[in-house]
Amino acid sequence: MRIAVVAPLVESVPPSFYGGTERVVSALTEELVRRGHDVTLFASGDSRTSAALVACAPRGLRLDPEVRDYAAYTMIELGEVYAHAASFDLIHNHVDYFAFPFSRLTDTPTITTVHGRLDLPEVRRVYSLFPEQRLVSISHAQRLPIPQANWAATVYNGIDLGHFRFEPHGGDYLAFVGRISPEKRVDRAIEIARDVGMRLLIAAKVDPADFDYFKHAIEPLIRRSHLVEFVGELDECHKDGLLGGAYASLFPIDWPEPFGLTMVESMAAGTPVIAYRAGSVPEIIEHGVTGFVCDSVRSMVEAVPKIAGLDRQACREHVEKRFSAGVMTSGYEEVYATIVGGRDAWRLEPSLHLMEQHVQQAPGTML
Amino acid sequence: MRIAVVAPLVESVPPSFYGGTERVVSALTEELVRRGHDVTLFASGDSRTSAALVACAPRGLRLDPEVRDYAAYTMIELGEVYAHAASFDLIHNHVDYFAFPFSRLTDTPTITTVHGRLDLPEVRRVYSLFPEQRLVSISHAQRLPIPQANWAATVYNGIDLGHFRFEPHGGDYLAFVGRISPEKRVDRAIEIARDVGMRLLIAAKVDPADFDYFKHAIEPLIRRSHLVEFVGELDECHKDGLLGGAYASLFPIDWPEPFGLTMVESMAAGTPVIAYRAGSVPEIIEHGVTGFVCDSVRSMVEAVPKIAGLDRQACREHVEKRFSAGVMTSGYEEVYATIVGGRDAWRLEPSLHLMEQHVQQAPGTML
Repeated sequence: MRIAVVAPLVESVPPSFYGGTERVVSALTEELVRRGHDVTLFASGDSRTSAALVACAPRGLRLDPEVRDYAAYTMIELGEVYAHAASFDLIHNHVDYFAFPFSRLTDTPTITTVHGRLDLPEVRRVYSLFPEQRLVSISHAQRLPIPQANWAATVYNGIDLGHFRFEPHGGDYLAFVGRISPEKRVDRAIEIARDVGMRLLIAAKVDPADFDYFKHAIEPLIRRSHLVEFVGELDECHKDGLLGGAYASLFPIDWPEPFGLTMVESMAAGTPVIAYRAGSVPEIIEHGVTGFVCDSVRSMVEAVPKIAGLDRQACREHVEKRFSAGVMTSGYEEVYATIVGGRDAWRLEPSLHLMEQHVQQAPGTML
Repeated sequence: MRIAVVAPLVESVPPSFYGGTERVVSALTEELVRRGHDVTLFASGDSRTSAALVACAPRGLRLDPEVRDYAAYTMIELGEVYAHAASFDLIHNHVDYFAFPFSRLTDTPTITTVHGRLDLPEVRRVYSLFPEQRLVSISHAQRLPIPQANWAATVYNGIDLGHFRFEPHGGDYLAFVGRISPEKRVDRAIEIARDVGMRLLIAAKVDPADFDYFKHAIEPLIRRSHLVEFVGELDECHKDGLLGGAYASLFPIDWPEPFGLTMVESMAAGTPVIAYRAGSVPEIIEHGVTGFVCDSVRSMVEAVPKIAGLDRQACREHVEKRFSAGVMTSGYEEVYATIVGGRDAWRLEPSLHLMEQHVQQAPGTML
């Protein structure tokens, strides 16, 4: 099948450091090529892929100091993709609603994997105006704010297990890997480490938008505790080492996490995850087998000693069975075949457009 | 002619407060309707127009506290516009490069008025990738960074003179109207007022991005001087009063201003402008007649006493002749007729697309 994969340009594919979506897109792309598909990857120019690469920005935008205007590059990218739509059987979009209006002008079908949260009012509004768009969710929980959308399937994110060495024994510290931001609640991780008296390694990026939060809310907590160490943003080579060497990972989030790739990466390295119940968490962790899904910080603290009773091998196998690149790719192949074979029974007519609703009406009426 | 006018959604059309582009789009739209065109205005739902209005957001995004993601609404808007492209003879785009990839997928011609600066590296890159796009500049100076683009015409911005009462006498203070940001150099205006010992009224908006600059660089200057008064952001009803009541306006910018609507508004109210030479300034002010174009802050200071020798009526007439809504609309009607009549001799073929250039090349090669 001739497939255009449209990746975000924020990070390279795969990313050098943080970047869950780009890592998943990379795993999918490589596996599709391996299975004989004719794949064209639209991504930043510093991406590494065995697909044909169309470089839509010189390098990942987040790490390019010259770049201030991300949307400009997304327009370049979608301009390229849809100008060549006839060369593809299918366009697999990973840049969210930006592709929606383009897909309406094009015969080649577009399928969009939603990587972000859907509970923000304006995101719901955009989606409600493009109800015919074919969507894939990355967890069932992610769909909750817009259950009536044109959902084709849930396909869980997968990782390339070759990148995550299994560590059978683990170590004596807790790990927090990801991003410093209020909804990720690293403060809870620090609280838990203090309560149980274990070391905590924090490996995370700090976005400019979260720098004040880090400086004023988190750094003082880190300085105050001799148990906590902040090691900055990890590249892929060092991530499995830090995760695999841990006793347990902490995932104390406070937001509707759409997937949570770090949980899968931790389990792949053999390390169980203690997580706060929110969003996708109960779908990713097998409670009591590969970690614990908790309803309070207190129960997260109480889960720490119970980790010793879990089988690290079971964590790895859980990922192999449910969250490998292969399993993910098979999921997408099914979706692709349904669409290209014209067998998708979903409604495909755009709803009444704004224009039909609103032209000639009094100003102020809307949506 | 059936014309779709695509306005920015940041402010309503016309804007309640600051918002040069939306004010110009409003003046153009109303005059086009008055001249018998069939105009559909795509804009925020709180816009006021005699054209057919398609509300693409409930209200202007900047003043809507719920809104964080402006691009989402622009995608809704362009989705609507281009899904109905066949209903129009022409699409007049005011939302910059966002429309470029859509125009490639559509038979109805698009003409884009560029309202922003073109000297940023990434903006030049986007424009260079869409060289076939028909563009209108709002000053000759604006074109300098991309002289080779497909420029159809320069059409100066125009204002509705009915909104700007002519004040024949002026007063005893200097005025700075617009936006507080480093490139607008309100600090220079404060310096000039201090040097000549005149009062300075500052009427300006402060964007969240510029709040630190305002707090730390500008507010202390204002507090230290008994001559300077900050009156906040003005609505349209109060702007001509403040401008018309001034002895002179100061426009001490330090960036390639693409147009500078405030200069025109000041002259319309009868008040000459003392401006720093940059960008469009020499095209807007008739040096020695409607103000002074200066090459240093020192020469701006020296220009202040010379303002008394200028004829305020000449300022008004300068605007009537060059920068009225009527003159602007006639300029655009000429451009429209050339395009719709198929008489535009500009090159219309997109250059080699990225995809032809880059597919199958090694990662890292780019643009």
